[in-house]
Amino acid sequence: MQRAEEAARWLLERDDFLILTHRRPDGDAVGCAVALCLGLRSLGKTAWIWKNPQFTDRYAGRLAGLVTEQVSETAVIVAVDMATEDLMLYGGEQFLGKTQLCVDHHPSNTRYAAHTLLQSQCAACGEVIWELLEAMEVAITKDMAEAVYIAVSTDTGCFRFSNTTARTLHTAAMTVEHGADITPINRVFFEIKTKGRLQLEARIIDSMEFFADGKVAICCLPQAWVEELQVTEDDMDSISGFPRTIEGVEVSVLVRDSEPGKAKMSVRAAPGYDASAYCARLGGGGHKTAAGVVVRGSLEDGKNAMLKVLREENVIG
Amino acid sequence: MQRAEEAARWLLERDDFLILTHRRPDGDAVGCAVALCLGLRSLGKTAWIWKNPQFTDRYAGRLAGLVTEQVSETAVIVAVDMATEDLMLYGGEQFLGKTQLCVDHHPSNTRYAAHTLLQSQCAACGEVIWELLEAMEVAITKDMAEAVYIAVSTDTGCFRFSNTTARTLHTAAMTVEHGADITPINRVFFEIKTKGRLQLEARIIDSMEFFADGKVAICCLPQAWVEELQVTEDDMDSISGFPRTIEGVEVSVLVRDSEPGKAKMSVRAAPGYDASAYCARLGGGGHKTAAGVVVRGSLEDGKNAMLKVLREENVIG
Repeated sequence: MQRAEEAARWLLERDDFLILTHRRPDGDAVGCAVALCLGLRSLGKTAWIWKNPQFTDRYAGRLAGLVTEQVSETAVIVAVDMATEDLMLYGGEQFLGKTQLCVDHHPSNTRYAAHTLLQSQCAACGEVIWELLEAMEVAITKDMAEAVYIAVSTDTGCFRFSNTTARTLHTAAMTVEHGADITPINRVFFEIKTKGRLQLEARIIDSMEFFADGKVAICCLPQAWVEELQVTEDDMDSISGFPRTIEGVEVSVLVRDSEPGKAKMSVRAAPGYDASAYCARLGGGGHKTAAGVVVRGSLEDGKNAMLKVLREENVIG
Repeated sequence: MQRAEEAARWLLERDDFLILTHRRPDGDAVGCAVALCLGLRSLGKTAWIWKNPQFTDRYAGRLAGLVTEQVSETAVIVAVDMATEDLMLYGGEQFLGKTQLCVDHHPSNTRYAAHTLLQSQCAACGEVIWELLEAMEVAITKDMAEAVYIAVSTDTGCFRFSNTTARTLHTAAMTVEHGADITPINRVFFEIKTKGRLQLEARIIDSMEFFADGKVAICCLPQAWVEELQVTEDDMDSISGFPRTIEGVEVSVLVRDSEPGKAKMSVRAAPGYDASAYCARLGGGGHKTAAGVVVRGSLEDGKNAMLKVLREENVIG
């Protein structure tokens, strides 16, 4: 299915839906699940979201009354924002091979579902869900609009990331036209940081080492700091990209020891570099602009291994 | 003039324009001036932006070739984003009382110009300029679109602030449709911070004192830090709002000694508080959510004076 109208017709002909989200669900996954669930219910249908043990606190209010741990034999399984079955949420193993419709925007979607509505030009799956709601002629409510706003804004860093398109911005505008109160959402997702997160950032800045005239920044994030400052997973959101927000930094490496005896490195790079190549040399991978790798050893071991690679790749002179 | 069509007709009937910006010009002022200047030139007209000594480095490329220090006797004076003549740029004193058209979005506009196109429901003057370009049937170029994008995005904190409307987001979407390359703009304005700014933030966090169960945060920003860390005016952008980005903080006070012997305080407050009332008690003023005051004395003197007010106003128990 390439067109939302087809998926809309398919959904309208059915009832009793169970919506699946992916592992480590983000704003796009949760927003899409909530909007679709509410939209289907508004049409008089039965719809539930399968409980994801990794739903974080900030979504609790929006998910209230929509989440279940019981599934009927005949439920129609719909996955949102899930590119592959490898990403199936923990506790969703029973649904492997059983997804009937997948709504997604990832070009890497493996077509694991019986039907797939894939719009890979979209920055967020929320844009696809919006079109789907309109195609089903759902009377879009404030709660649905806010769920879609959360989806499109979080997947684009509040419209800052390079994936943002005119359609993303138009979709956000339409959520406002349908009553989305975006100010408190923006404050929670894009403005407020906890004191712990800010203290952590301060320590990261202090620990940062610069190479190649400030173009390369390497810094460590010991788990001891995370525990001492009581920083949560929600707080740690996109911390890997933090060193790349410093002026002049083109390649950044953040080294963590969140698993004992291992050094987990996140590499971020400007266009013209190849973060995935550097990580591949140590057994990792990813994209040119964002990649990662885990090596055995301490924070120092990881840092030194990556420094060696960056020297050999002539990133550091 | 309430309608852009009227202002468009008025502009189309004239030639030889000089565009004025306000003191401490922000992205909205510069973006509007650039877009209007380019738009008028694209129609074969002569148009220049009067040199503002406070234009900062980040706008240099966009202003190149558009700025003048010479004015013809017959030039038509147009001001953008300037609410009152008190805000006239330094070096623009000769234009006091001579503005023929003012394009603006501030409800506080004093109607100092002969004609005023005021759309006070707009988050940014850039939204008005966009409508004006369309009304003049300008073939909008990438450079014009990017100038308007800078205007609307900077005035709304990249669409995060409460002034953001559906129209703001639709306007941003249209700039993308007209070729605006928003990723590098977003990186410069909303993502990159200098090392100095980040180090400054780290020190502010360390110096912060909390009251009323963490609802009130007071912190000092000694000028010595600004000089030691070589932080520029561009770097200091919206530093006054920084303490309010901490989770749980409802009222924040940032105290600076940028002028010797004086303590300059910026107060930010959540709905339900009245920052302007607290500042008024010390001789300052502003809005309920954002206000300021300058008192004689040291940083400590300023902090203690404000703490006294906050106690008397029952903000601090």
